[in-house]
Amino acid sequence: MGNNIQAPRGTYDVLPDQSAKWQEIEAKIIELCNLYQYKEIRTPIFEHTELFQRGVGDTTDIVTKEMYTFQDRGDRSLTLRPEGTASVVRSFVENKLFGLPDQPVKLFYTGPMFRYERPQAGRMRQFVQFGVEAIGSKDPAIDAEVISLAMELYRSVGLKRLRLVLNSLGDTESRIAHREALVKHFEPRINEFCSDCKTRLEKNPLRILDCKVDRDHPLMATAPSLADYLNEESQAYFDQVKMYLDELGIEYVIDPNLVRGLDYYNHTAFEIMSDAEGFGAITTLCGGGRYNGLVEDLGGPESPGIGFAMSIERLLLALEMEKVEIGQSQNLEVYVIAMDDASKKKAFGIIKELRSNGISADMDYTGRKLKAQMKSADRKGAAYVIVMGETEMASGQVALKEMATGEQQTVAFADIAGTITKKKSLEE
Amino acid sequence: MGNNIQAPRGTYDVLPDQSAKWQEIEAKIIELCNLYQYKEIRTPIFEHTELFQRGVGDTTDIVTKEMYTFQDRGDRSLTLRPEGTASVVRSFVENKLFGLPDQPVKLFYTGPMFRYERPQAGRMRQFVQFGVEAIGSKDPAIDAEVISLAMELYRSVGLKRLRLVLNSLGDTESRIAHREALVKHFEPRINEFCSDCKTRLEKNPLRILDCKVDRDHPLMATAPSLADYLNEESQAYFDQVKMYLDELGIEYVIDPNLVRGLDYYNHTAFEIMSDAEGFGAITTLCGGGRYNGLVEDLGGPESPGIGFAMSIERLLLALEMEKVEIGQSQNLEVYVIAMDDASKKKAFGIIKELRSNGISADMDYTGRKLKAQMKSADRKGAAYVIVMGETEMASGQVALKEMATGEQQTVAFADIAGTITKKKSLEE
Repeated sequence: MGNNIQAPRGTYDVLPDQSAKWQEIEAKIIELCNLYQYKEIRTPIFEHTELFQRGVGDTTDIVTKEMYTFQDRGDRSLTLRPEGTASVVRSFVENKLFGLPDQPVKLFYTGPMFRYERPQAGRMRQFVQFGVEAIGSKDPAIDAEVISLAMELYRSVGLKRLRLVLNSLGDTESRIAHREALVKHFEPRINEFCSDCKTRLEKNPLRILDCKVDRDHPLMATAPSLADYLNEESQAYFDQVKMYLDELGIEYVIDPNLVRGLDYYNHTAFEIMSDAEGFGAITTLCGGGRYNGLVEDLGGPESPGIGFAMSIERLLLALEMEKVEIGQSQNLEVYVIAMDDASKKKAFGIIKELRSNGISADMDYTGRKLKAQMKSADRKGAAYVIVMGETEMASGQVALKEMATGEQQTVAFADIAGTITKKKSLEE
Repeated sequence: MGNNIQAPRGTYDVLPDQSAKWQEIEAKIIELCNLYQYKEIRTPIFEHTELFQRGVGDTTDIVTKEMYTFQDRGDRSLTLRPEGTASVVRSFVENKLFGLPDQPVKLFYTGPMFRYERPQAGRMRQFVQFGVEAIGSKDPAIDAEVISLAMELYRSVGLKRLRLVLNSLGDTESRIAHREALVKHFEPRINEFCSDCKTRLEKNPLRILDCKVDRDHPLMATAPSLADYLNEESQAYFDQVKMYLDELGIEYVIDPNLVRGLDYYNHTAFEIMSDAEGFGAITTLCGGGRYNGLVEDLGGPESPGIGFAMSIERLLLALEMEKVEIGQSQNLEVYVIAMDDASKKKAFGIIKELRSNGISADMDYTGRKLKAQMKSADRKGAAYVIVMGETEMASGQVALKEMATGEQQTVAFADIAGTITKKKSLEE
């Protein structure tokens, strides 16, 4: 760590030259969610640990290995949220949003999440997720709407190399049937698997298919597929989701092995991947699915839900891979250079006046010479430069210099803001 | 806590009917900071604990009593950030922003902070701060600019009952002189003070003046004032700050007892208070000041800084007290009602088309009857309603009903988005 204090491992700073990208993505999220009528919800950074044990599932990697859990000064066990859905559902139940007259309640969130993992590109310990949750409807059309919103966000920032992967995890009956088949399949040779898988066999055999240690075991390839165990109702539901996606012209591939890493999913599960060159392998940008039953598990009435979460860091990586530029930071409009103390005082007032009129303006605060200040104006991309000294103070006028053309116009102090506003409106 | 899991004590959810206010404030922050040319920086939610011990000061209440500190799985001592300045300065040093050609570096941040305090209105354990830091200049004009930006944000959201309070804490020489006077003043009777104050006498006697326990002790009123110990340079600096504020037409009152709760301040210290009725007492909305030396303390080169932080929760409270309404959530433009499965499929495609054209649109996802759906359209404030059934499917046309006037217009499926776009542009 050296003598100086650094950002904790697995975290990073968004520096001023990068933040315009984040602002642009967040503005697009707000705009798009308004078009789709999803309203923002903001939940705390930490929750009672029990929420994630119950809501994410206590056999998942997230809960068993990756949570930031600690006691507060009042001896509560708190956990930095590792994902957003459990918190949103907790809030839905606690605040009785199931009682609102318009169901489903369509929500979105953006904010930091925390998982203690080995840091690598696109997988930090603190990362930002945008997610939506539609709670209170089991209409397959809402599944298609949620998927469509995710796809639309990626398209609206300019991504093209997208692949939507779809699966159905079926309802409880289908899942029990499949679970029994899995146990039957793995049990005879479970000793050849890792200790985690042995636990999984008992608690949640579906998780075995996610195992990174045993992925090459021959039993993996021949494991019974959930697709073969879907009952009629689950199959009909899945067909409807696909029908609506077809209606929207959204292409997808079916992957019967798509399971999703969280315990609460059933019926529709999906991922949006990027196959942009540069990622090496195909990369998951977004994952989501249906979670009928989760609201009841957390103490609410029957309220079927579906949602997704996407990492903003991965979205930015995908933009880089596809060489799409966003977040051109807005340039400075006016830079004022003062040659002495009296003009500086006046310049300071002029800058304030410009800003009050919606014109971005700046000056020097380090006492540099004219030449250095001109360079500064250049670097900041100033559209106009004003130099103020004894002459200007005496005449009450300045030369307003347009940097792109080199043209100068003489303007009285009181008319500077008005003149620039007029020029701006002519440009538009 | 009951059977259901609730948000942890001292935290709260921003529910969908409130979030538009937050979005509006954040949009104003981004807009205003662009006018003033402050760029956004985003630092992690937690930092190495040592950062706050060194950067906030290990005799402050924040560091001794209020921090959320924990060990991570790699046995690092981490702390949820209790304020923003230490993190921004850490990032300034770590990322060598002092090497950028344009100094000062003008930064802003918005995000959650964490202090373990007794929760009350406007003082939650998780709260959101907007703050700015201008690092790399000791020009008194930048002090005035920073103060002006804070005042302007409040004004731009509509607050009027504002009071700016100003003080100078002087430079190191002045502070040492004052410190000696304080020790001389309190030492003979320090046994009459609380144990915290006894520690403060040795470590930081200025803190005694902040003590909530001993506030009524007679020695408090007669304690030597820093104003009497400012050396010539500090006094001249303070005079310049006031001169620039005068130039901007910003009113202020001088309060020689204004100390600020953090160790790192010197020279300019300020608070913006609200005297809106309803707060009961006068309430601090925003605090800030100069912190020359902090960058060096955290391992960087000499880079004098100044900044402020304001709580967004208190800003919202102040808006309530002054009865200013913001964040009128954008209403729905089109609600589509489908009478059967075939029309629903078509309606779903039409909604998608509307949204792709920047028109907000929604429909029912719970299979309710026509009348219930009409009520829903009403509640959502839909500007237009379309009803689709067998007739519409056969003709390929719909009646586009304008809710405000009751007027209906017959439009082909393919022309719905175009017709509404045209109507919207006529309205503007």
